[in-house]
Amino acid sequence: MSSNMRPLREIRYVLTGLGNIGRTLLELLSAREEPYAERYGVALRCVGVADSSGAAYDAAGLDPALVAAIKRERRGVSALPQHDPDLSAAALVAEADADLLFEATPTSLADGQPGLDIVRAALRSGKDAVLASKGPLVLAYAELAALSDSGGNLTRPRMRFSGAVGGALPTINFGRRDLAGAVIERAELVVNGTTQVILGEMAAGRSFEQAMAIAQAQGIVEPDPTLDVDGWDAACKLVIFANAVLGQPATLADLRVVGIRDVSAEQLQAAQHAGGRVSLVALATRQAQGRYELSVGPVALGPEHPLARLSSQEMGLVITSDLGGRSTLASLEDGPVGTCQAMIRDLLELYGPRRG
Amino acid sequence: MSSNMRPLREIRYVLTGLGNIGRTLLELLSAREEPYAERYGVALRCVGVADSSGAAYDAAGLDPALVAAIKRERRGVSALPQHDPDLSAAALVAEADADLLFEATPTSLADGQPGLDIVRAALRSGKDAVLASKGPLVLAYAELAALSDSGGNLTRPRMRFSGAVGGALPTINFGRRDLAGAVIERAELVVNGTTQVILGEMAAGRSFEQAMAIAQAQGIVEPDPTLDVDGWDAACKLVIFANAVLGQPATLADLRVVGIRDVSAEQLQAAQHAGGRVSLVALATRQAQGRYELSVGPVALGPEHPLARLSSQEMGLVITSDLGGRSTLASLEDGPVGTCQAMIRDLLELYGPRRG
Repeated sequence: MSSNMRPLREIRYVLTGLGNIGRTLLELLSAREEPYAERYGVALRCVGVADSSGAAYDAAGLDPALVAAIKRERRGVSALPQHDPDLSAAALVAEADADLLFEATPTSLADGQPGLDIVRAALRSGKDAVLASKGPLVLAYAELAALSDSGGNLTRPRMRFSGAVGGALPTINFGRRDLAGAVIERAELVVNGTTQVILGEMAAGRSFEQAMAIAQAQGIVEPDPTLDVDGWDAACKLVIFANAVLGQPATLADLRVVGIRDVSAEQLQAAQHAGGRVSLVALATRQAQGRYELSVGPVALGPEHPLARLSSQEMGLVITSDLGGRSTLASLEDGPVGTCQAMIRDLLELYGPRRG
Repeated sequence: MSSNMRPLREIRYVLTGLGNIGRTLLELLSAREEPYAERYGVALRCVGVADSSGAAYDAAGLDPALVAAIKRERRGVSALPQHDPDLSAAALVAEADADLLFEATPTSLADGQPGLDIVRAALRSGKDAVLASKGPLVLAYAELAALSDSGGNLTRPRMRFSGAVGGALPTINFGRRDLAGAVIERAELVVNGTTQVILGEMAAGRSFEQAMAIAQAQGIVEPDPTLDVDGWDAACKLVIFANAVLGQPATLADLRVVGIRDVSAEQLQAAQHAGGRVSLVALATRQAQGRYELSVGPVALGPEHPLARLSSQEMGLVITSDLGGRSTLASLEDGPVGTCQAMIRDLLELYGPRRG
């Protein structure tokens, strides 16, 4: 079947969150309109956007390239002609005539907002949701699973979040699909870029402050750096992994979390001297009754460990399972693009041509 | 929904090929009857088996543990009471009242038989097919895609083969699903265990013959060792990868294939001295017009290469794509169990509960 005969399926989406990830997603979708229509039969129409300055809706479609350009000029949605000062992001999502929500607002670990209400609004109004944000999943996984197909109820809207656990690293898909039938015995996730860079630079002799400056220059540090340094970003990803892959209803309170503040120069040198390195590892180990023990902390990886030689900006995981042996995944990505690829992956899984 | 309320779905299967992979699959499915029923709602019934000695069919079900035990005693299907001397494997598959074929017969690169006729019989009789064998896909991918859903026609039976390209390594699923929306620029596959072991042992100072003996003792060498040594096993996997992931209708004739016979001790030592190693790499590189150049040959991997430090029995791949950055997958498996996990993964994707 030649692709120019493929009927186009129009997918109307709303995007909340126009930081690095949201803006990059708009740029990518705008630039790839033709190839995605041709190759996947999907015609995307952006009907709503929201950032911290406000929300805008246009059933006829907003121009994603224009919205991205406004963001690059450091202006906001409030600068768009379609800006509606009486419209909140959650109301936009609830009321928009759209198929899909892309959610990329910054994570608040205190209450999961604004993302949590936004995702609720999408699912309750019958919209599919593709999440880059972790907060809603960390704080309310069970609720969102019940509102969506993630809990097994296929009459619900579909929720996907493969970009919420390490950018393009296919953690969730691999754990849920490729290891189906196997029992995971151990999972080690190195999924926080900031601590990878900091520990790597400190092992090379730089001070913590110098190393942090380098990480910040790369644009990878959370708005609140303590989330990275104290292990909470990694802990969030482990909570999501536990819920979605291990089937264990975990919350942050169930994890033992230790950050990297007390890692000494001596420990770093020793690990390096042995041919390995220290990384912040999010760890799940299966206990006798089938429950997983979950923790985050710095670990000296030996030279034979598959994650000991990750590049500075690379993330990875190792899973040991009864039937799959030892599986390793790693992803070296360029800033937000990898997370956007994960969101596009989810989009095409939901709306692309079903194929074997 | 408690799992003991989940309605059981009975799946009737035929298994062709009872070598290491087929026999291990029977043992695993037999041992995991209860957990798979409980967790996935799937009740498997083996209604037919075939090996080189013959075929057997029983609508009431054969005992997979018994069949595996007979194989362990080095007897064959001809020893089963249900053996039908007038029944060929292809006829068994065509006529059996079954949902699914598991195909694990040894690969013949000359004509793809007996697997090709077996798979044809399954698809033409409306049965889904899960393949561990490469031959049918290498020699007749386009034909089998047209007979199945792999070509996009979802009214056809479903064909899955994630275990045909490196055991449990999720090559096909990752390439087709997780990289959806991205354009693959380069793919390097190290997926032949025999040459990994031989080149590793030779780098450690052993002769080719000694290294081959070690690989054979591990049970990983093809019945015809030249398939491994001359690069044809890796080439087969690259052909399947090209067809299924890159969307390029390749055959073995389209590949430049060089094996490991001319790799010198000096080259091995030099690579090791530099901190890397020589591996047989199956390579796809995207050319300007979008077509991929495909080749197999020994490559000196530098110390920074993600595949330079694979364990002796580990396989892996690196894919560079425009949106996904550099993705690395690796799989360290125990003999045939990894391939069986891939077949179980495919089984559960086809028949397990659909979930988000």
